[in-house]
Amino acid sequence: MTAIDTENRTAVARTDLDAVAAVAAAARRAFAVTVASTAAERATWLGAVADALDASATELIALADDETRLGTPRLTGELARTTAQLRLFASAVVEGSHLEATIDHPDPQATPPRPDLRRMLRPLGPVAVFSASNFPFAFSVAGGDTASALAAGCPVIVKGHSAHPRLSARTAEVVATALAGAGAPEGVFGHVTGRERGVALVQHPEIRAVGFTGSLHGGRALFDLAQGRPDPIPFYGELSAVNPVLITRAALDARADELAAGLAGSFTLGAGQFCTNPGVVLVPAGVDFAERVAAAVGSSAPVPMLTDGIAAAFAEGLAGLTAHDGVTVVAGETTQQPGTGSAVVLATTTDAVIADPSALLAECFGPSTLIVEYADVESALAAVRAVGGSLTATVHAEPGEELGDIVAVLTEVAGRVLFAGWPTGVAVSWAQQHGGPWPSTTSIHTSVGVTAMRRFLRPVAYQDAPDAALPPELRDENVLGIPRRIDGVLTVP
Amino acid sequence: MTAIDTENRTAVARTDLDAVAAVAAAARRAFAVTVASTAAERATWLGAVADALDASATELIALADDETRLGTPRLTGELARTTAQLRLFASAVVEGSHLEATIDHPDPQATPPRPDLRRMLRPLGPVAVFSASNFPFAFSVAGGDTASALAAGCPVIVKGHSAHPRLSARTAEVVATALAGAGAPEGVFGHVTGRERGVALVQHPEIRAVGFTGSLHGGRALFDLAQGRPDPIPFYGELSAVNPVLITRAALDARADELAAGLAGSFTLGAGQFCTNPGVVLVPAGVDFAERVAAAVGSSAPVPMLTDGIAAAFAEGLAGLTAHDGVTVVAGETTQQPGTGSAVVLATTTDAVIADPSALLAECFGPSTLIVEYADVESALAAVRAVGGSLTATVHAEPGEELGDIVAVLTEVAGRVLFAGWPTGVAVSWAQQHGGPWPSTTSIHTSVGVTAMRRFLRPVAYQDAPDAALPPELRDENVLGIPRRIDGVLTVP
Repeated sequence: MTAIDTENRTAVARTDLDAVAAVAAAARRAFAVTVASTAAERATWLGAVADALDASATELIALADDETRLGTPRLTGELARTTAQLRLFASAVVEGSHLEATIDHPDPQATPPRPDLRRMLRPLGPVAVFSASNFPFAFSVAGGDTASALAAGCPVIVKGHSAHPRLSARTAEVVATALAGAGAPEGVFGHVTGRERGVALVQHPEIRAVGFTGSLHGGRALFDLAQGRPDPIPFYGELSAVNPVLITRAALDARADELAAGLAGSFTLGAGQFCTNPGVVLVPAGVDFAERVAAAVGSSAPVPMLTDGIAAAFAEGLAGLTAHDGVTVVAGETTQQPGTGSAVVLATTTDAVIADPSALLAECFGPSTLIVEYADVESALAAVRAVGGSLTATVHAEPGEELGDIVAVLTEVAGRVLFAGWPTGVAVSWAQQHGGPWPSTTSIHTSVGVTAMRRFLRPVAYQDAPDAALPPELRDENVLGIPRRIDGVLTVP
Repeated sequence: MTAIDTENRTAVARTDLDAVAAVAAAARRAFAVTVASTAAERATWLGAVADALDASATELIALADDETRLGTPRLTGELARTTAQLRLFASAVVEGSHLEATIDHPDPQATPPRPDLRRMLRPLGPVAVFSASNFPFAFSVAGGDTASALAAGCPVIVKGHSAHPRLSARTAEVVATALAGAGAPEGVFGHVTGRERGVALVQHPEIRAVGFTGSLHGGRALFDLAQGRPDPIPFYGELSAVNPVLITRAALDARADELAAGLAGSFTLGAGQFCTNPGVVLVPAGVDFAERVAAAVGSSAPVPMLTDGIAAAFAEGLAGLTAHDGVTVVAGETTQQPGTGSAVVLATTTDAVIADPSALLAECFGPSTLIVEYADVESALAAVRAVGGSLTATVHAEPGEELGDIVAVLTEVAGRVLFAGWPTGVAVSWAQQHGGPWPSTTSIHTSVGVTAMRRFLRPVAYQDAPDAALPPELRDENVLGIPRRIDGVLTVP
């Protein structure tokens, strides 16, 4: 995203407003159907989308490779992950525990007498989804935000990313056709393009929530628009993370080369264009770890980046870092070639980081990493705290090593804490958490994994309702066989 | 709350900033302890607060009556509700399902191999709580926001309400002493007063979330401050609701006087100073329901309101309503006496409401209700939609009556849908939902009931963690015996 002029919001052109109004009205009409849909119906819709994407895999992957240059192997895996994600949500909605169905029977003895209360989560309404550039399948038109919103029962309008416009348009066609074929209502899925329509979408009265994956700058602008509405709506943004890694002295003593190779593989993966890229790595001072990482990277040929804009931003970020007095260039070209990124290893100290965190710790989206030497663990943890909110935080230690405050501090700054491996790689499962303190995300929810549905649901309690007026999930007889809490006791059929 | 000048935020006096900084720093130090506290410890803290409040009941109720004039019977019940609420949270934290403990074992066969992932909810950090004027116990210093935040493991700083300053100060002493006696860390509970300190609190870097119950105007101003921070934080506000009630023709035919008496009792309860007050009541045209309500109210002696400001706002709201061409005064004094409120019954039509919803549907905090005559159910539902977001929506129908779209529309606008009774009266239980679409609340969570804890928790996933490094809730052996989801399957010990 580029900057949005919040002072000048009426400047969105009439044609853009009209286009968004039409798709939003269709989504609102579809919501009248989706809000009353059964879990089985929604599972069928999600499965149909997954099947249709798989059936179009060859065409879609070729389009994606042409537009993103991420390569067929990576894109094949990403599409498989995307369709598996849709199927996981399909199974989860049928399981039904995400609805938090809760029944409190009346208590006439209580003071005052307690009525019959039955509570469950219900869909919010039409949702706007802003695609990311770096995952043309998994965080784009049919990605996690779309899947979780549809699973929740919310119509979705995707604002396609300009970095892969043809893939977005074609994926949108495949998704819309599959949904229609599976009996989903017209308008349940829409697709718009262009910055102005994105702005109009966030401000449209029918939109009840926004999912966003992108830059801090663009995300903050849209967040401000969403919160500045006459009726503010939830804005679930994943914005920026540097994903600190802390390596203990014992771990480095035991396996410096293995760690260097692991880091080299992680920060250069996909030309470093991952929100979970390990951007800051804390290592004990006096060890040649940065040089080992440089050796593991080897020759760093320029790799095409997703867009010229991303490449330019990477070069600019590097220029800022390398101009800093406290930073040494250990390996790589500080002057990048237009449109490409090549691996760069930088080094500094915890003192420099703590003295000037904002200069040294901004996300540098591309294949670079900053090795930060620490004198003692306290300094390392102070630097981790200076990093601030992040999607992930990693510690590499030896088995049985006493970790002291390390886990507490990593937990404080991140939504996922790793004890082995590297943060690039986000499994889609029940226990996943992709989201952490600001600025990594804007909410207390996840954008990856089954619980991502919670973002698009709100609780409703029914008081003294006749059985027939209740949603099936809350009727006396548990015909759907879902987990429910009855009079305070969680029961699983 | 009165208006906050967001343009002039630096105008908060140095002494206020310093006072807030001191209490926030103490809360941050306490968080280092509470974040690692066990559920059993937190249950002990909550129980100790409840016991101490009960032990001081006579003194506290007398103070409350002196400052609020709500009367001993009402205040006695409210304090009992408040201590029962603390004990309910104590039992819930030990039960442990609110933590959403989830374990996904590794799957080396997956592509890519899936790591071991374990996820649970963890406390956010220090929380600011803004007391309400109208519930000096249940939504004040030791009320639901405080109880749910402490239960979640978050230190609390209360901004006491100016409508009951002596009660607030004394309650804060009782709470702080009880917490200290029960072994809770110093700084876990703080209390500040004054508008400027409230503003400083919302903007203080150590504050990680805000709970607020109050006016739309004041709440919106604080919401904007919270969202406008360099690092926005969740603002859980309960702001404004008119709580529509729809009475079907069959119900009115069957029991008009019973319904009139029920409504009269509900909208005049506590001088109408309830956020769940039924402010708009839709009834079939051509029936003398408004007159029956007026008769049920009987003589409407002026009742002292909580503050002169609230009384003045009520008089002003009434003046606006009665000046409207479409509104008839059925009963009551349109000119209110200073400092008091007396019951007023107004009448209008759905046409007038739909033509000018903002004039007719603003919350009028006090003992008034607007009877809206409808020609057919479609018009009634159009008026309900015009009402917008509300805490509650009620339908009174006859047993077995076909409700058509009524339930769907009520569910769309409200967080609690009632099929009998009146909305004033909010049971504290597992299934309660107190929160609905804007402007009734600002979030997709509840501020009453056990799930209110979710507002002050955020998910953290641990990847490939050694057992000893995990919180007890996520270790292999389920020593705490809490519900957990293992490889996708929810299991209850």
